[in-house]
Amino acid sequence: MAASDQPDARPIGVFDSGIGGLTVVSALRRLLPNESIYYLGDTARLPYGGKSPATVQRYSLEIAALLLEQNAKTIVVACNTASALALPLLRETIPVAVTGMIAPGAQAATAATRNGHIGVIGTRATIKSGAYERALREQNAEVRVTARACPLLVPLIEEGWLESEITDKILMQYLQPLLDDGVDTLVLGCTHYPLLRPAISRLLGRAITLVDAAENCAAELRHLLEREGMNAPPEQMGQLQVALTDPPDSFLQIANEALQLEVGEIQLRQL
Amino acid sequence: MAASDQPDARPIGVFDSGIGGLTVVSALRRLLPNESIYYLGDTARLPYGGKSPATVQRYSLEIAALLLEQNAKTIVVACNTASALALPLLRETIPVAVTGMIAPGAQAATAATRNGHIGVIGTRATIKSGAYERALREQNAEVRVTARACPLLVPLIEEGWLESEITDKILMQYLQPLLDDGVDTLVLGCTHYPLLRPAISRLLGRAITLVDAAENCAAELRHLLEREGMNAPPEQMGQLQVALTDPPDSFLQIANEALQLEVGEIQLRQL
Repeated sequence: MAASDQPDARPIGVFDSGIGGLTVVSALRRLLPNESIYYLGDTARLPYGGKSPATVQRYSLEIAALLLEQNAKTIVVACNTASALALPLLRETIPVAVTGMIAPGAQAATAATRNGHIGVIGTRATIKSGAYERALREQNAEVRVTARACPLLVPLIEEGWLESEITDKILMQYLQPLLDDGVDTLVLGCTHYPLLRPAISRLLGRAITLVDAAENCAAELRHLLEREGMNAPPEQMGQLQVALTDPPDSFLQIANEALQLEVGEIQLRQL
Repeated sequence: MAASDQPDARPIGVFDSGIGGLTVVSALRRLLPNESIYYLGDTARLPYGGKSPATVQRYSLEIAALLLEQNAKTIVVACNTASALALPLLRETIPVAVTGMIAPGAQAATAATRNGHIGVIGTRATIKSGAYERALREQNAEVRVTARACPLLVPLIEEGWLESEITDKILMQYLQPLLDDGVDTLVLGCTHYPLLRPAISRLLGRAITLVDAAENCAAELRHLLEREGMNAPPEQMGQLQVALTDPPDSFLQIANEALQLEVGEIQLRQL
């Protein structure tokens, strides 16, 4: 039962350090086609993955304020690093509900694992924060977690080398220790990584289940909108507005092609 | 003949997007041991190499203002991307002399080449700007230039993979077309790249001369200080103060070890 009888046409605010978060937008569009989305990619200051908690928190608060100015009814932190470092602070500070990537990813992983041993890959900052370990243990205190920072994967994806011998070698350099350790499930703990999913699947084979939080994040948001009675009008055609803090480069085309999102004119916003 | 009889104890202001510019500080310390240096690395917003001219110019002006507050007598842009995109604007705006990386690198390269065919590697933004081509042709209108953006090299260096099979493969992926094209001289057009010099030398052999602008930049600065009568007092022991916009991570240790700089306590400055 909705908390209000009026549908809520306001957009969902989504942000990421760059445009990796468009993998989450893609899942939101499929699951919630009536919802409008205002996406902010902080391309002028990306990447966040090697930066300190204080800096990532400051940036996240600035962006959340901008999304509220855009009349966002709720905010999705479509960036694992910002979710890992800034979610509690955002929830204390922002007057709308905030959904992150970590809890949805942890739920999907604990549901998928058979041997209770889960691998997590992410940026340096995400892994260092221990946020995935905490979220996984909240789901299941018995779970074993092996986490590994993979700082070269984002630049590799932005270079567009999604399938190459070098990519395979870098992936195996990062993933072999997790395999040796016996994980049966691997969380792709960065919103860029789904673009490497074909290569990772090919290298790891079917014995390892890959978990990407985007679908679960979209499902969590759908529950939230229903619970709070904030769904868009059923007749609404959801719009997608993308804003970036620095003009887009070639990666936007890579993301467009890989995600088949219709990204129209891009706004520039200075932060 | 110096323009003034008084020595000038004020520091030289040096900046980079991160700590790659410490390769330039290292050259300055060797050539100008009496000079104090105030170094600002914009680690909260790095890297600059994939960002737009407008954003890199805005960041460069903000940092130059901070260095002037620190009483800098002159400014060195120890970042090829900022030199390529922001040097003319800085020179119009800032009331002290500004030295960049591009002209010193171009001078060293035109002096080194025997067949008149020079390769340049750098960030996407540096290469796209065409700044090296222009500077090389100003030195010698007959020179042939082959330029290539190498966006994976900075993250590779920051990951600390200075010598590895993967590094060799990435380097050859980027450099083979320049070799095939017949360059006999290669400009390392990013202040991070000297940390890969051993690997690049080993791969390219002695037929290719590697040019790194740091030494030439230091030499140009020495001329400037002498010409303007701005040398430090001869009895002064030059101090090095490093400030960053985000707390340092493991890369500082890599740079310290590779460059043998004595970096003491690091200031944090918010921009």
